[in-house]
Amino acid sequence: MSVPDSVSASSPASPFQRLTVVGFGLIGGSLVRAIRAAQLPVEIVVYDASPSVRARVRELGLADTVAETLEAAVEGSDCVVLCTPVGTFGLIAEVMAPHLKPGAIVSDVGSTKAFAIDAIAPHLPEGVHLVPAHPVAGTENSGPDAGFATLFKGRWCIVTPPEGADEAAVERVRALWTAVGSNVELMDPPHHDRVLAVTSHIPHLIAYTIVGTASDLEQVTESEVIKFSAGGFRDFTRIAASDPTMWRDVFLSNREAVLEILQRFNEDLTALQRAIRWGDGDTLFNLFSRTRHIRRTIIDAGQDTARPDFGRETATPSGAAEE
Amino acid sequence: MSVPDSVSASSPASPFQRLTVVGFGLIGGSLVRAIRAAQLPVEIVVYDASPSVRARVRELGLADTVAETLEAAVEGSDCVVLCTPVGTFGLIAEVMAPHLKPGAIVSDVGSTKAFAIDAIAPHLPEGVHLVPAHPVAGTENSGPDAGFATLFKGRWCIVTPPEGADEAAVERVRALWTAVGSNVELMDPPHHDRVLAVTSHIPHLIAYTIVGTASDLEQVTESEVIKFSAGGFRDFTRIAASDPTMWRDVFLSNREAVLEILQRFNEDLTALQRAIRWGDGDTLFNLFSRTRHIRRTIIDAGQDTARPDFGRETATPSGAAEE
Repeated sequence: MSVPDSVSASSPASPFQRLTVVGFGLIGGSLVRAIRAAQLPVEIVVYDASPSVRARVRELGLADTVAETLEAAVEGSDCVVLCTPVGTFGLIAEVMAPHLKPGAIVSDVGSTKAFAIDAIAPHLPEGVHLVPAHPVAGTENSGPDAGFATLFKGRWCIVTPPEGADEAAVERVRALWTAVGSNVELMDPPHHDRVLAVTSHIPHLIAYTIVGTASDLEQVTESEVIKFSAGGFRDFTRIAASDPTMWRDVFLSNREAVLEILQRFNEDLTALQRAIRWGDGDTLFNLFSRTRHIRRTIIDAGQDTARPDFGRETATPSGAAEE
Repeated sequence: MSVPDSVSASSPASPFQRLTVVGFGLIGGSLVRAIRAAQLPVEIVVYDASPSVRARVRELGLADTVAETLEAAVEGSDCVVLCTPVGTFGLIAEVMAPHLKPGAIVSDVGSTKAFAIDAIAPHLPEGVHLVPAHPVAGTENSGPDAGFATLFKGRWCIVTPPEGADEAAVERVRALWTAVGSNVELMDPPHHDRVLAVTSHIPHLIAYTIVGTASDLEQVTESEVIKFSAGGFRDFTRIAASDPTMWRDVFLSNREAVLEILQRFNEDLTALQRAIRWGDGDTLFNLFSRTRHIRRTIIDAGQDTARPDFGRETATPSGAAEE
């Protein structure tokens, strides 16, 4: 029988024999699904602090083992990837550290990397390698059913090794993300945090704010906000539907960079406010013309769809699909 | 031959015999396409100030007549719909007024209604009815090829008659928008302007601002902003790719309402900024939890898609479609 051989021949090499995913939400669940879709020959252990999520992961049948404790989950693993909100990293590292295999790699998918390193590194025993990573991908959904195998395809994953990190360990983490379809870039952790403050954290903060502002007005009802949301507002509600715990932790753990970029945003918004008050149409027109090319560049870089309105098909009362 | 009869029997009634559309961009072009798709028995005249747009409309073959002048375009029409930036309304009204048929209806699709009325009404002769309207629909694209027939389907169109408007004229404008698939709501013009400041104007201003801020930073390159835009930023670039002239005019013509809502937004953002600085996670978590239900309500109201990430298929380097 040549079947096992041919399967093995067609499977890509795996950087790890046994991989533990801690936290089975949007990102952890997508990572497991993507590894399965890529047919990496790796044993997958999943742990989630929630008993109902563990039960769901068992039903899904995607993991080789669903562990009942964090300690058991990491035993004997070559790589442990933390896929929980960054605020949990310190405690998780402390609890799992004594159970890590010598030479194991600890990684994570958190959105703030200097904080992640500060939270995890002090707990790790000698000979265990810390190689943080951040896949820049996601949707507004969360929970064990939110993930999907193609989430990382064509998206960037930023790997942020601390100073003096083991090069072989870095290459193995890179190989994992490459295997699930990501482009990988290395970056130093503080620079990562500043870049993501711009491209992710501040956009989320602004979206949460405007959705909150809109629902607090006295003169405009919530029903009006809902009905007429297609004027632009509805785009912001998608981002503002993201997981609250994850995002609280992002802002608390990237305070300096977020406040710095927010200051710049505020200055720019104040300048536009002044232009509106004084009827300075040229200032408005010049900015509005300048921002258009950025969208084109993002589309050309394969980071968004060229279809108008994201190509979304909106449910209509008649059920008719839009063009 | 019963063909003409049966066609006529299956066609819906039209509120107008002859309709003039001034400005063939995203909205004007979609309106003409939607009227054709609905098979309304109406003669359509199109005028656009740009010779190249007029040539393109002729090629498209959607209009019965493409007029060479505004004056000729409105002669004998029951209804003239202005689909140009609101800043042009005063001049257009002045030029076309002497050529309007007695009893004609003048309407528009502008985003700011008190201004539209102030700009148009003083020029109209006795016996011509002004019934402004605002279809709350659009994409980030503009120009004669941006429009499509289903743009208004299931979206709201707000009709804002001035005090003392002719009721029959209001009903005919309502019938036009109903025929192209919109839900119609009547609103007084200043209230419209405040509602749209929330659901459309401020979201656009914020999107333009953050895209501008991101491209001006010294420590984060534009290439980094592009590459890592999938963290949330890319959503804002869609809105910030909207037509600069149209949006300049919106802000200049809805100054009071925009500045009022912007003040509220600024207060709320400052409160979050303070919560981040002082590590007040509860304030962040409470807001982030509250905003989630608004998205759900918008989806339930048929005003956005329930598919994660707007259901967008992002072009990937490998060309693989995402789930």
